[in-house]
Amino acid sequence: MKPSLVAIVTVLIASLGCRSVANTSDAKSQILRLDAEWSQAAQSRDVDRVLSFWSDDATVFPPGRPAVVGKPAIREFVLESFRTPGFGISWKTNDVVVSRSGDLAYGTGTNRVIFTGSDGKQVTVEGKAVAVWRRDPEGDWKCIIDIWNDISSFSR
Amino acid sequence: MKPSLVAIVTVLIASLGCRSVANTSDAKSQILRLDAEWSQAAQSRDVDRVLSFWSDDATVFPPGRPAVVGKPAIREFVLESFRTPGFGISWKTNDVVVSRSGDLAYGTGTNRVIFTGSDGKQVTVEGKAVAVWRRDPEGDWKCIIDIWNDISSFSR
Repeated sequence: MKPSLVAIVTVLIASLGCRSVANTSDAKSQILRLDAEWSQAAQSRDVDRVLSFWSDDATVFPPGRPAVVGKPAIREFVLESFRTPGFGISWKTNDVVVSRSGDLAYGTGTNRVIFTGSDGKQVTVEGKAVAVWRRDPEGDWKCIIDIWNDISSFSR
Repeated sequence: MKPSLVAIVTVLIASLGCRSVANTSDAKSQILRLDAEWSQAAQSRDVDRVLSFWSDDATVFPPGRPAVVGKPAIREFVLESFRTPGFGISWKTNDVVVSRSGDLAYGTGTNRVIFTGSDGKQVTVEGKAVAVWRRDPEGDWKCIIDIWNDISSFSR
């Protein structure tokens, strides 16, 4: 029996829809896994690995200073952070939402930065964060927008 | 002449693709226009209008305090801000990127908050901001994630 055009088109559209939903769910798990690996790399101070999670055209918006645009500037920013006495950072993304087309997503979570204060004591700054992720042509998710701020009042 | 199945499916897929690109460009203009109207409403201190640009389940991440989740809490946050002596806010979104499916987008820009300092003088805080927008089932774009921080060091 020859399948009707309507049936074929219906199956085509349905399969596009299903693939989209499956991709969205896969993408969410993938980004959560990447994000955990990224935080781990930052805790290990592995600069090249830390940088690999941002896209080349990413922008980082750190509190208390202008935006940091593009990989070379972000590398400087990361190196400078790692040079801060007593510096440490960790974060956790709690939720990820992916666009239906599976090309754009955002994650929200919390972070913690520690460093040595001017009195020699450890300072801990708790923050909240938003990251926007983009799927690149190779199919890899990269962070393109990275912004956070402090949960309570803190003078930088 | 009866059109071939391949031709019909090709046209179908191509038209889906074209619509997606057109939607993306429309969505970008729409969000930029909404954002300008939103800043205008904030400058006019029109609370209900200001609130209408966020989705009911939006989260606002203001610097120096915990996240503000959902419309009732955001209303309180807006009212509290408007009560701050000498308070004023304006912002401008410079860029918007929309997902291929036209359901999710993000914007980046700058903002400026003014208020009266403890010494009675006007304080101006320049910031940078990221907003995530979602197209709701009625086709309207609403801000679901709203985060910003200061461009230079500032103690709240």
